[in-house]
Amino acid sequence: MKGSIPTVPLKMSFALPDWVAPFLADQPPAATDDDRMRLAVELSRLNVERGTGGPFGAVVFAKGAPYPVSVGLNSVVRLKNSALHAEVTALMLAEKALQTFTLNLPTLPVHEIYTSCEPCAMCLGAILWSGVRKVACGAGRDAAHGIGFDEGPVFPESYKYLESKGIEVQFGVLGAEAAAVFDLYKKLSGLVYNG
Amino acid sequence: MKGSIPTVPLKMSFALPDWVAPFLADQPPAATDDDRMRLAVELSRLNVERGTGGPFGAVVFAKGAPYPVSVGLNSVVRLKNSALHAEVTALMLAEKALQTFTLNLPTLPVHEIYTSCEPCAMCLGAILWSGVRKVACGAGRDAAHGIGFDEGPVFPESYKYLESKGIEVQFGVLGAEAAAVFDLYKKLSGLVYNG
Repeated sequence: MKGSIPTVPLKMSFALPDWVAPFLADQPPAATDDDRMRLAVELSRLNVERGTGGPFGAVVFAKGAPYPVSVGLNSVVRLKNSALHAEVTALMLAEKALQTFTLNLPTLPVHEIYTSCEPCAMCLGAILWSGVRKVACGAGRDAAHGIGFDEGPVFPESYKYLESKGIEVQFGVLGAEAAAVFDLYKKLSGLVYNG
Repeated sequence: MKGSIPTVPLKMSFALPDWVAPFLADQPPAATDDDRMRLAVELSRLNVERGTGGPFGAVVFAKGAPYPVSVGLNSVVRLKNSALHAEVTALMLAEKALQTFTLNLPTLPVHEIYTSCEPCAMCLGAILWSGVRKVACGAGRDAAHGIGFDEGPVFPESYKYLESKGIEVQFGVLGAEAAAVFDLYKKLSGLVYNG
């Protein structure tokens, strides 16, 4: 049957928008949970304002370090890829930065993810596999639902599962600020992209 | 603070192993569910035998079409990336092939994913967002657990959630053949990579 089969894609690539690097170069050091979440929320807000994606941002930090290891933005519509949520993107890029498939290594500092919204089912799983030891969430899932974003099959037991694996979960870190970006998104008539 | 911030990665890329294209070029058309699952299982087996990843393969087909739109392999260890499970990889590549963030469009045929093992929590979420209308599973999660792979917070309600969104779920398609690849992986002392 050689030669008769349609070609399938064998590779792919993705990139954050061009505004991300200059934005990060202007950021002050982030010392507290609020500082770190503020960075995730600011990324989500700029993603909406610049028209580069949905209202979701995430950052990965080594515990105690002033600057992030990686950042991620919802890029589903821009990059035509339903898996490129903020958290998945930030985690993939953090593992690239450190050249490891797990951030949970004795040779590395503890890593933590700050996400501007409680993760969807996919991202919650991705957080588990990444080896981060803490997930801090901004806006609640109800706020995402309020503008039409489905979070998928995430249950209280899902978070308990993460905690049973030693992952600390924080809810409502700058929750109001994070949810305000959803209002902005709705106002700007952003495309809500559930499949 | 300009200039003082460590560089974060702004892009990434990934590719399937070199053996995939010639392997696919030799495949017969796949007419039945078993034919399609056989392709996913064969990919999982070759991934183990060639030492390019964990014992998991997935394929995306348009309903009724003889050849896949995309294929995916577990590439976590090879590519140092905890999100590059077989299903996530196949779905990202299917969306690249069709240049869309959802496979569930009136202008497209219905798409279906065949995965050699019941999906983990992350992949189950990714399946939901991709717009496929069916997921067929080979080996059961217990078989994966049996060789040390965690599936994460997947519950009966998780599958019910998919079904409530119109996604058909099939279990145990070539289940024994798929699980046999786990035995092979264990025998070859593959690294089990839970974070």
